[in-house]
Amino acid sequence: MDGYGYSRQIQFANQEDKQEFSKFPTKTGRRSLSRSISQSSTDSYSSAASYTDSSDDETSPREKTQVNSKGSSDFCVKNIKQAEFGRREIEIAEQDMSALISLRKRAQGEKPLAGAKVVGCTHITAQTAVLIETLVALGAQCRWTACNIYSTQNEVAAALAEIGVAVFAWKGESEDDFWWCIDRCVNTEGWQANMILDDGGDLTHWVYKKYPSVFKKVQGIVEESVTGVHRLYQLSKAGKLCVPAMNVNDSVTKQKFDNLYCCRESILDGLKRTTDVMFGGKQVVVCGYGEVGKGCCSALKALGAIVCVTEIDPICALQACMDGFKVVKLNEVVRHMDMVITCTGNKNVVTREQLDRMKNGCIVCNMGHSNTEIDVASLRTPELTWERVRSQVDHIIWPDGKRVILLAEGRLLNLSCSTVPSFVLSITATTQALALIELYNAPEGRYRQDVYLLPKKMDEYVASLHLPNFDAHLTELSDEQAKYMGLNKNGPFKPNYYRY
Amino acid sequence: MDGYGYSRQIQFANQEDKQEFSKFPTKTGRRSLSRSISQSSTDSYSSAASYTDSSDDETSPREKTQVNSKGSSDFCVKNIKQAEFGRREIEIAEQDMSALISLRKRAQGEKPLAGAKVVGCTHITAQTAVLIETLVALGAQCRWTACNIYSTQNEVAAALAEIGVAVFAWKGESEDDFWWCIDRCVNTEGWQANMILDDGGDLTHWVYKKYPSVFKKVQGIVEESVTGVHRLYQLSKAGKLCVPAMNVNDSVTKQKFDNLYCCRESILDGLKRTTDVMFGGKQVVVCGYGEVGKGCCSALKALGAIVCVTEIDPICALQACMDGFKVVKLNEVVRHMDMVITCTGNKNVVTREQLDRMKNGCIVCNMGHSNTEIDVASLRTPELTWERVRSQVDHIIWPDGKRVILLAEGRLLNLSCSTVPSFVLSITATTQALALIELYNAPEGRYRQDVYLLPKKMDEYVASLHLPNFDAHLTELSDEQAKYMGLNKNGPFKPNYYRY
Amino acid sequence: MDGYGYSRQIQFANQEDKQEFSKFPTKTGRRSLSRSISQSSTDSYSSAASYTDSSDDETSPREKTQVNSKGSSDFCVKNIKQAEFGRREIEIAEQDMSALISLRKRAQGEKPLAGAKVVGCTHITAQTAVLIETLVALGAQCRWTACNIYSTQNEVAAALAEIGVAVFAWKGESEDDFWWCIDRCVNTEGWQANMILDDGGDLTHWVYKKYPSVFKKVQGIVEESVTGVHRLYQLSKAGKLCVPAMNVNDSVTKQKFDNLYCCRESILDGLKRTTDVMFGGKQVVVCGYGEVGKGCCSALKALGAIVCVTEIDPICALQACMDGFKVVKLNEVVRHMDMVITCTGNKNVVTREQLDRMKNGCIVCNMGHSNTEIDVASLRTPELTWERVRSQVDHIIWPDGKRVILLAEGRLLNLSCSTVPSFVLSITATTQALALIELYNAPEGRYRQDVYLLPKKMDEYVASLHLPNFDAHLTELSDEQAKYMGLNKNGPFKPNYYRY
Amino acid sequence: MDGYGYSRQIQFANQEDKQEFSKFPTKTGRRSLSRSISQSSTDSYSSAASYTDSSDDETSPREKTQVNSKGSSDFCVKNIKQAEFGRREIEIAEQDMSALISLRKRAQGEKPLAGAKVVGCTHITAQTAVLIETLVALGAQCRWTACNIYSTQNEVAAALAEIGVAVFAWKGESEDDFWWCIDRCVNTEGWQANMILDDGGDLTHWVYKKYPSVFKKVQGIVEESVTGVHRLYQLSKAGKLCVPAMNVNDSVTKQKFDNLYCCRESILDGLKRTTDVMFGGKQVVVCGYGEVGKGCCSALKALGAIVCVTEIDPICALQACMDGFKVVKLNEVVRHMDMVITCTGNKNVVTREQLDRMKNGCIVCNMGHSNTEIDVASLRTPELTWERVRSQVDHIIWPDGKRVILLAEGRLLNLSCSTVPSFVLSITATTQALALIELYNAPEGRYRQDVYLLPKKMDEYVASLHLPNFDAHLTELSDEQAKYMGLNKNGPFKPNYYRY
Repeated sequence: MDGYGYSRQIQFANQEDKQEFSKFPTKTGRRSLSRSISQSSTDSYSSAASYTDSSDDETSPREKTQVNSKGSSDFCVKNIKQAEFGRREIEIAEQDMSALISLRKRAQGEKPLAGAKVVGCTHITAQTAVLIETLVALGAQCRWTACNIYSTQNEVAAALAEIGVAVFAWKGESEDDFWWCIDRCVNTEGWQANMILDDGGDLTHWVYKKYPSVFKKVQGIVEESVTGVHRLYQLSKAGKLCVPAMNVNDSVTKQKFDNLYCCRESILDGLKRTTDVMFGGKQVVVCGYGEVGKGCCSALKALGAIVCVTEIDPICALQACMDGFKVVKLNEVVRHMDMVITCTGNKNVVTREQLDRMKNGCIVCNMGHSNTEIDVASLRTPELTWERVRSQVDHIIWPDGKRVILLAEGRLLNLSCSTVPSFVLSITATTQALALIELYNAPEGRYRQDVYLLPKKMDEYVASLHLPNFDAHLTELSDEQAKYMGLNKNGPFKPNYYRY
Repeated sequence: MDGYGYSRQIQFANQEDKQEFSKFPTKTGRRSLSRSISQSSTDSYSSAASYTDSSDDETSPREKTQVNSKGSSDFCVKNIKQAEFGRREIEIAEQDMSALISLRKRAQGEKPLAGAKVVGCTHITAQTAVLIETLVALGAQCRWTACNIYSTQNEVAAALAEIGVAVFAWKGESEDDFWWCIDRCVNTEGWQANMILDDGGDLTHWVYKKYPSVFKKVQGIVEESVTGVHRLYQLSKAGKLCVPAMNVNDSVTKQKFDNLYCCRESILDGLKRTTDVMFGGKQVVVCGYGEVGKGCCSALKALGAIVCVTEIDPICALQACMDGFKVVKLNEVVRHMDMVITCTGNKNVVTREQLDRMKNGCIVCNMGHSNTEIDVASLRTPELTWERVRSQVDHIIWPDGKRVILLAEGRLLNLSCSTVPSFVLSITATTQALALIELYNAPEGRYRQDVYLLPKKMDEYVASLHLPNFDAHLTELSDEQAKYMGLNKNGPFKPNYYRY
Repeated sequence: MDGYGYSRQIQFANQEDKQEFSKFPTKTGRRSLSRSISQSSTDSYSSAASYTDSSDDETSPREKTQVNSKGSSDFCVKNIKQAEFGRREIEIAEQDMSALISLRKRAQGEKPLAGAKVVGCTHITAQTAVLIETLVALGAQCRWTACNIYSTQNEVAAALAEIGVAVFAWKGESEDDFWWCIDRCVNTEGWQANMILDDGGDLTHWVYKKYPSVFKKVQGIVEESVTGVHRLYQLSKAGKLCVPAMNVNDSVTKQKFDNLYCCRESILDGLKRTTDVMFGGKQVVVCGYGEVGKGCCSALKALGAIVCVTEIDPICALQACMDGFKVVKLNEVVRHMDMVITCTGNKNVVTREQLDRMKNGCIVCNMGHSNTEIDVASLRTPELTWERVRSQVDHIIWPDGKRVILLAEGRLLNLSCSTVPSFVLSITATTQALALIELYNAPEGRYRQDVYLLPKKMDEYVASLHLPNFDAHLTELSDEQAKYMGLNKNGPFKPNYYRY
Repeated sequence: MDGYGYSRQIQFANQEDKQEFSKFPTKTGRRSLSRSISQSSTDSYSSAASYTDSSDDETSPREKTQVNSKGSSDFCVKNIKQAEFGRREIEIAEQDMSALISLRKRAQGEKPLAGAKVVGCTHITAQTAVLIETLVALGAQCRWTACNIYSTQNEVAAALAEIGVAVFAWKGESEDDFWWCIDRCVNTEGWQANMILDDGGDLTHWVYKKYPSVFKKVQGIVEESVTGVHRLYQLSKAGKLCVPAMNVNDSVTKQKFDNLYCCRESILDGLKRTTDVMFGGKQVVVCGYGEVGKGCCSALKALGAIVCVTEIDPICALQACMDGFKVVKLNEVVRHMDMVITCTGNKNVVTREQLDRMKNGCIVCNMGHSNTEIDVASLRTPELTWERVRSQVDHIIWPDGKRVILLAEGRLLNLSCSTVPSFVLSITATTQALALIELYNAPEGRYRQDVYLLPKKMDEYVASLHLPNFDAHLTELSDEQAKYMGLNKNGPFKPNYYRY
């Protein structure tokens, strides 16, 4: 069971492997889904068809023979003929990802990835395509596969295959397909990966297990998900990580956008798309006042909701107070709330007992973590009736007629019912590209066999590449000022512990 | 051409009629569309199918014979068998319209509409059904038809027909159907309307023209749209209005909700659903700082956009300044904007010349008035390419590759790409019900053959019926305080000119 | 007892007069106090000395002989030698009142007040001086006196006297002085007033009573206070108003600035200056959600306070809900509040019983109306101890040690403990000047013997004169657009009932 | 020259000492000034008199013999007879510092400071008195002196002396007095300090230099200022710190309150008290978007100002964008601004050239750091006229008559012209008390001869002690949840790198 709300049984050769790579639901991965995907299917990923895909072709891609216009067949996608449509999607995505384009231009002359052989495993979307094509422009050779059996945009995969990227991915893969695709990426004659870009750790695991000799020669791993990072730390702790790895999940810029800024918008969007609720005057309790909770509270308050907060951490609780939110226990207020929103990362934050006490029409949803926060299982009892009124919207009906409105069955609202702006994906992708460049070009000895955070200076560089989107003009330190502050004029500008 | 962005040629017997009832695009009508409708079809109303309607039945309802479970066939709907589904939709709507339910309960004993024979012409949605069933509960007999050929929820119409309301309406009527339905409502044996509830003025016109003897005996007309009100004032000015009429469009409560509060939410919703744009840091110009503009600016600013305003009225401009928005001319800023939003009620507020100067990726949309504000026609020239990228979203592509993103072809974003919360519809419906009660029960002489605003006390009553939704507790004046203020303890509490 | 919180017994010749002019506390007048005054004396007006006034001279101005540099002695001020200091104050005020300066320039060529003989009675402050000198620049002759025995800035009066304005006013007049000054303004040889500019109605009353023949020949009265306007309406109702009068108190621009915009800032300022309280996280109840309450709530919420609202009017209550404030009864919450703020215009909104239930440290203050809202009298009982801890701050101590912090003894916080920005005074002054011009130049028959509101077009003109302060650029209607909207390109742009 | 804007030449025995303890202006110290002080003297500290102090007694306290009511004369204050007044001030302060009172109660039974002999050097204000009396209640013996020659509240010092605390401090000490007082605290027969509580490092230095044998036996130093912490780190680096020291300046809670929350309020307060400016519609540039800048921007935006930001750090710049502030270079906008506010911590952020280009009436002030940010020195040239219009307000007048309004001569606005709420001081004081308890009770070996940050758990404890002020109710983790999260139920709840 992962963060996507469906079960994916990965078959490991033996139990020990499974232990070593034991997964827990990811917080980050979930936010990396693109606009077009969640748009294409508000019915969640379990819906098999993409909105541009007539899907009448039931033949497995593995059984088809396809050739791109240059004669290559080193790829496996749903339908190479969709390439043109996918190209348009990529072009549209490029407009919101000017930071990557700009990186492409700045680094293109020097080809900082010349010689890099990158094997990648991510969601395959228009935004990822912009990343991949940036890597190619910087000199890399790329082979790519999907980190999720449902999230591939077939048209985009076709467009990548058409320009010669070796892509192995389609929407609706089986588990067997999933590992087959990964293997086809890694195991190819006359080509040996020297860089890994991973989202979730499955690719890394596969190389580590199946191709240990390849693994040992890899120059660096870039991992963006909480899960994958966790697995890398476990490997490192166990003394089995023989390659430097970069944790790009915890870079400042990415974190702020994934959590605070993105959720500030997606809480409104997710609630509107599913329930059309009016925010003005609504009484809302937000459980948890971390970055996600802060974003939710700020947006709801701004739209006229009356918001209170639950917290376990007194420092965050004090912040909530100073920001104008009453800090309460859920039990004290649950009876009067119009909406209950969880953002804690914890489990059973909303219990059956509390659901029993909610008033008629109360909306319950989860912005925080996997599907554990609301005890949805407790609602699957005979005396309660479930009525699906829309995609992602269930009415749970009590014997007395009271209805509680549960969104996305307690899974992440922002994953299931909203979208992630290209701008946020651009920040992630730029961070990944810079991490690859850093690891690939770092002088001998800078990185050892460990997991690293992106250097602050590169984090600042990612931010600076995105400033032109806002026509923002940075001030430069004068020599005199830099000296006074004890700073290099080009940064980094803050100590590592700075809180932003 | 009306506010819905499609052409509906209404055939009048002669040109004079047409003059008399010359329509202009309505501001209000548009906002009365319900949740379920726009949800059902983000492809706009031109899509023929409702989301619950398999639509395989192509027979015209006029040609079918249908009977409800009580044996009546005095109705004409798409499919009476959809009644159960429609009933559930009505029940869901009731949960958000507790003010009407409360009115139902308070007035039910005295049946203030006993004897009233109401003929109505409105959008036929779950929310309207709650209104109609309230009128019935208060003693009225009702016959109903649709004010718009596309906006009927067939299932709801079936549910109304099932409980005995004489409904004549379906989604996708022809012009001929439209007038046929109106006529069937009015012209029935043994039943003569004594009250009219209208939205747009078509029903009123039909009765006035075709059944002058009925018209003369009507006790009152309640009209909710700008268009219909305009037509009534024209009739009154021409000395031809022989019936007292109530303009419920301009009641305070309704206005504030239709414009300020509703648009504050729908601007965000409409933009997200169509473009998934991130608001943070975006440069936005809002043309017009009336109630709609104020709502848009407030919401966008709260979500981190950098907003400036254009205005023609120095008082509104000064308000914009005090609210923290720079007041500019569109020409001064248009080159740098990420979004241009019109809320003026005027025409050609955004010209081709300005569209030419916009930057790549600029989003242009209209929240104000019909489809006149953006000069969309000017964009239909050979050198520009239109590319439909999603429903309601066109990319207009200049020869140099620049794309401007036009939403809803310049029609109202909040109509086309967002929804109206039930709560707002509840306010409108409650206002309509109270206006009917007032006109039907007013003592001889209180109202003459003229157009009236809802008495402030009733406006206050509508508001008070909605306060329980927010668990809001009103304070009562003591006798001493009432005397000090020179007020009646039960209101009205403000002079007519009070600005709120 | 007037709005300034001290008693001023005005001796009328007979009781009937008193009835006719019975005063009630003004809402507007109070806000017209200038920056420098309240700055000069946070000890309230009862402090005799101005901050620039050494006050060692105890001789009454009436007993002194003073001559200005041009040899004139037609004035009576504290000390003509302070003129230079006063001139500087006026120059500083001019910087914030560029609208008046601009009006001066625009109208100077045509001298629209040539021939006008204006007798004025207002607070005499630097801001008023800018107004007076504008009238002079536009052609008027002016004689001036103070409408309040404490509010004169002596230096400013001196500066006016120095340039030849006949000023009769000083800080700390006796009641006898007050009427003597008024009389000296009106009753002078060879000069007969034809225009009256009044603030409170005392001057108007004096002319009406003492110089009926002058009164009859006056061309117009401009009155800015609630009290004065009320007295004019009474006179009109009694059929005794033989002169057209302009109520400038109720012009849109003035109202919004006097109430919403000004109080939004002064609530914070008044609380900080008196108590240094931190707003973040404080629980506050604001009684009344009119313009003043809206301003207070908006500011406090923005600074992190948790605000709830009491209301008697369901429409305003609904607005409070939609703006995100819980609507409660005072009794329900009073026990938990950190601050109680009244903005109702009513009496005994906060009772002794409620004061008894407040928690230790609760701050109580009044932003609304005179000194009636908090039942301060009920606190003057033996078991309670009053402790003055600072100017304008009393601790009321209950027998158990509980302290309630009462500000300004329940008088207006914004009068007593804050200041009015010059910008707001500029709007008032510009409105007054335009009203004088309008009445003085109106063609025969436009105004009869009644009380009028400022024409909307002039209200818009006042606003437009203030836009340059914000570098705001108005958009002009094209001919085509004006026609489409049915508007004159120069305004007025809104119907009279428009709510802004 | 330190952060207080006046020069204090501290005479060191030799130059080497001076090097070792070289001071730089403090950011933190400045914010620790209490309500009453800055209230007492808006004329800045250079004014000698306290507002309750008639000051007619010119005898130096050192020359007086005073005895408290218990017969002790082990103190030196201005006037022991002011004790009663000071006691009242302390009682008032206690009301806002309930966290300390609560700590007093919780720890009183166990007397965690029994045996502690604390020598302290801080501002001596009512708030500090609450801290000192808390330490006494917890078992400590205290001797105290002032860290600033102007900041002592004489009445409070008297009240402390009256209850037996050995206080040596008065307002307006000479440099010689300053060191004499410190010495009297440390050097007393039969009493040897074992704990130091310092603010600025002067006491620490004195003990280190003059009483090395005492210094070696000290169990711990608690230091709250940036300066003092800097000096400790230098000492540590030089290997001369033979005592564990606690840096309480950088605890999360203190930082957030000192910077973000406090400045959010004091920017408004400081501007209003000095200039009475209206915020609505004003164009403001805030230089620097750290915590202080974020607080200023948020408050000004909320009050209707139009705010833009300058930044050198791309990450902070991106945050500014997402929060809705245009990021500009100062040169691009300086000509149009109504206010320029510096919050950078840097020098010469506003240069003479930029001051030359400002428009008439522009307000310039510094919220950031010492007095370096605005190049005030550059304004002291013959062609410019300085005019002091109020305390802390200078008009700088250019030859063409343009005036720039400079506040506090470029020193810290929040120090000079605003106040620090007791609540913020409470957080600091509680942090100090807990740090003393921790160091005094830590088991052997927990702390070595180094500088430590307050353990996160204690930071959380400080926050939790302040939650009752807001009636905030923390949620407790269940066992199951704590296990799921991998947390101890009592905290700490976050990793050290958490950004809040």
